[in-house]
Amino acid sequence: MRILVTNDDGIFAEGLWALVKGLKSIAQVIVIAPIREQSAVGTAVTLSQPLRVQKVPLIVPGVETYSVEGTPSDCVILALEKLVKSQVDLVVSGINHGLNLGDDVLISGTVSAALQGYLRGFPALAISVAAVDSLYLDSAAKLATLLAEKIDSGVLSSNILLNINLPDLPLAKIRGAQVTQLASKSHINTVEEGNDGRRQYYWLVRQKTDRVADNQTDIWAVERGNISITPLHTSLLNRSAPAIPDNLCSHLLQGLRQQ
Amino acid sequence: MRILVTNDDGIFAEGLWALVKGLKSIAQVIVIAPIREQSAVGTAVTLSQPLRVQKVPLIVPGVETYSVEGTPSDCVILALEKLVKSQVDLVVSGINHGLNLGDDVLISGTVSAALQGYLRGFPALAISVAAVDSLYLDSAAKLATLLAEKIDSGVLSSNILLNINLPDLPLAKIRGAQVTQLASKSHINTVEEGNDGRRQYYWLVRQKTDRVADNQTDIWAVERGNISITPLHTSLLNRSAPAIPDNLCSHLLQGLRQQ
Amino acid sequence: MRILVTNDDGIFAEGLWALVKGLKSIAQVIVIAPIREQSAVGTAVTLSQPLRVQKVPLIVPGVETYSVEGTPSDCVILALEKLVKSQVDLVVSGINHGLNLGDDVLISGTVSAALQGYLRGFPALAISVAAVDSLYLDSAAKLATLLAEKIDSGVLSSNILLNINLPDLPLAKIRGAQVTQLASKSHINTVEEGNDGRRQYYWLVRQKTDRVADNQTDIWAVERGNISITPLHTSLLNRSAPAIPDNLCSHLLQGLRQQ
Amino acid sequence: MRILVTNDDGIFAEGLWALVKGLKSIAQVIVIAPIREQSAVGTAVTLSQPLRVQKVPLIVPGVETYSVEGTPSDCVILALEKLVKSQVDLVVSGINHGLNLGDDVLISGTVSAALQGYLRGFPALAISVAAVDSLYLDSAAKLATLLAEKIDSGVLSSNILLNINLPDLPLAKIRGAQVTQLASKSHINTVEEGNDGRRQYYWLVRQKTDRVADNQTDIWAVERGNISITPLHTSLLNRSAPAIPDNLCSHLLQGLRQQ
Repeated sequence: MRILVTNDDGIFAEGLWALVKGLKSIAQVIVIAPIREQSAVGTAVTLSQPLRVQKVPLIVPGVETYSVEGTPSDCVILALEKLVKSQVDLVVSGINHGLNLGDDVLISGTVSAALQGYLRGFPALAISVAAVDSLYLDSAAKLATLLAEKIDSGVLSSNILLNINLPDLPLAKIRGAQVTQLASKSHINTVEEGNDGRRQYYWLVRQKTDRVADNQTDIWAVERGNISITPLHTSLLNRSAPAIPDNLCSHLLQGLRQQ
Repeated sequence: MRILVTNDDGIFAEGLWALVKGLKSIAQVIVIAPIREQSAVGTAVTLSQPLRVQKVPLIVPGVETYSVEGTPSDCVILALEKLVKSQVDLVVSGINHGLNLGDDVLISGTVSAALQGYLRGFPALAISVAAVDSLYLDSAAKLATLLAEKIDSGVLSSNILLNINLPDLPLAKIRGAQVTQLASKSHINTVEEGNDGRRQYYWLVRQKTDRVADNQTDIWAVERGNISITPLHTSLLNRSAPAIPDNLCSHLLQGLRQQ
Repeated sequence: MRILVTNDDGIFAEGLWALVKGLKSIAQVIVIAPIREQSAVGTAVTLSQPLRVQKVPLIVPGVETYSVEGTPSDCVILALEKLVKSQVDLVVSGINHGLNLGDDVLISGTVSAALQGYLRGFPALAISVAAVDSLYLDSAAKLATLLAEKIDSGVLSSNILLNINLPDLPLAKIRGAQVTQLASKSHINTVEEGNDGRRQYYWLVRQKTDRVADNQTDIWAVERGNISITPLHTSLLNRSAPAIPDNLCSHLLQGLRQQ
Repeated sequence: MRILVTNDDGIFAEGLWALVKGLKSIAQVIVIAPIREQSAVGTAVTLSQPLRVQKVPLIVPGVETYSVEGTPSDCVILALEKLVKSQVDLVVSGINHGLNLGDDVLISGTVSAALQGYLRGFPALAISVAAVDSLYLDSAAKLATLLAEKIDSGVLSSNILLNINLPDLPLAKIRGAQVTQLASKSHINTVEEGNDGRRQYYWLVRQKTDRVADNQTDIWAVERGNISITPLHTSLLNRSAPAIPDNLCSHLLQGLRQQ
């Protein structure tokens, strides 16, 4: 199995390398990630400028690594159309430092990178953890590995785009895993004013809403200590796709808790 | 009626000002638009840097105008959260020089700006014409004006996000108007390699697919010479919203052809 | 006479247009300026990306205007090598909102734009006023006009790069004008730490030094209420160039005070 | 001895790490370099945006490494004012892939980084090799090491800013080393026009002039197969500084050829 890995926190992010180390145990991994942090860059694709790519000295032995001066979507397009072409079986984006839930997935670089994989016909996973300085990156990496195996073995259809979010809990305290729907807005933007000594500026800040999430949504699930798995191909794109097997979640949990 | 106008082609784009001149006949218009062209910037929101805003010398008399060093989404967030607050009845984004159809709306700055309005509870229109150097900007502006009036009068619900695309035809040759669904991908990206004399680069290029569009989709409609009106609140966000009145399209066409 | 005007505060800056209005009385003026504020961008030239140019709707009637998504140096190179070619008699950069004195001229976009003109064989002026919200832009514009006339008539050699700074005083209170040398550093940088709620950042801030400036330097002159005229072709580039006529300063003052 | 190393080719450049490996044999080295290639960014300092700094996983064991989303000058200012403060004995910028000669040093990020060190009172070296894919980075690194030792031992004054350029020759073929003056312009810019399928663009390109360089200038020296050492504190800033010892060049050559 060959897996393309990218993220939106940039090539030096801890979550990226935790993910790579996990996936490396079951597949050949290639990393093509943005050189700079790209949070909230959403679906942006760079059309008006050329892109620069650098081969990066190996950070994890055996894992070919490239950095791109561009967005997460640029990375996936460049990989699938040029650098590794179609010799890939799966696209995984993450592990994002911070949740990507509800309508907010629309501005998530992590999800957008996975979306570019899905729109090109590849199964794609976006994976995020709750805490910016998460202690549980390994669980998330393990979960990505289990899902990759299920896609590889055909248990899970390859015509999927899954958005996965883990609560900030040790494995033992995670209550369960759920297939969920996208909630609506989880954050609002407020605007702070400042002055740099020469000119006024405005800074957009995201703040959690106190809105109560509907049952069975991704926000609702994570708030209750569950892993949320949202099939975005139906939730976001309103597109039919093979169903998720009923026992997926219990199998995943079981797999996570093994060993 | 008070209308916030923005776009993704930037503050000097012809389409923006054609739209402003149209809407000005029925409403107070305020323009807050990106200072630079922002095509394909999609849903990007600028969180990691402060934003700079400049009051721009009036380009159309009586129309307060600001430029933002940011994305189309930044413009709408900044407007609605800070600069004009909620004293707005409608958000209109465009007139984009080039169509925004199918899955490609996900990377459209024009649509993303309207989406930010809709997510904040405002009715929102994204409007695009087929040709980059369109001769028919006035028809598009007139159409936006007619829709604004229908929202203002309550004929059309204010809980909507509409994506409107016009074929490159004079009014007399437009066959009709249709409420449509989002098609899937209309463009693919190819990657061109180059060298600037010092370093290699890659340039993403968008090319039309030759895929046949499904009936009743936006691409299908425009290819047949129709105006396409896609309710994105249902097509993209899978969200229920008040239905579009049955006779909307015939009324719009009639309105367009008057005078 | 044909004059190329640029600046580093960007196409909408008040100082730029005060300068244009002044020079327009004696010459044909063409404006090619950055679309965004570019202070402290220094000598930067954009080689790794293409540049975009837009014809801007006329801001001052009769004055052809272009905006460039690039640095002040980019603007001058693009103008002299492509857009207006060598059909120019003088390059004027400014009026900068804030002084450009001492070693700090090395990071000044205003001065760097003039430098690019000089290095290509054109006489070049950089002109700055003390206050960011100066009330005396007209005096500065008048001074630029007088210098342009002296270059046009051959009183002043065309092989010059002059850096001109005006104190924040009404014309009646200006004590004199002086040919000066470059002082050393007038500002230091301090670094402020901050956090945007997600990540730490550092922000460079410039602060005036309390160093006492040497006699006959530009800082010394302006502090005493004088207009400072620094021949940068000798001060910065250590290059011989025709001398400044002895009576230049008195003639300029006389000219400024007329009418 | 403690040495701050930076460059303008970015944190992954081969020249940077060749230099680090050389200097590490005689000093404690800290690397603070731009995350992206920054050629021709000249003296630019980032004042209008905050800067982001990342601790980079060690690339050379024992060498603390930071990447900055900013210019070479930003890196040095940030280092000396905040990250390492004044606990530095020398600033070295390079090894640049490509020569920095004549007036062109004014747009060199490599030289500008060294300049920021010098203006803050530190001895500073900028070092460049002729070929973009140089085979002789080790000679350049050795030369930097020899100069650092001479500064450390007081043989060379610490009040200096030296710009060093090496021809593209193996050590055995290098004819000598010379203290030189800055030549005038070595490159001109031409402008290429292009079109990305949507919009026209201009691309600045640098081309060598065929101008004959004056004797004793940096260009003249390198063209003749010599290492050029230009004291920029006098050539560029017209500032007096302790003289370079007469026998410096012969000592350096001897040192280079040893071992």
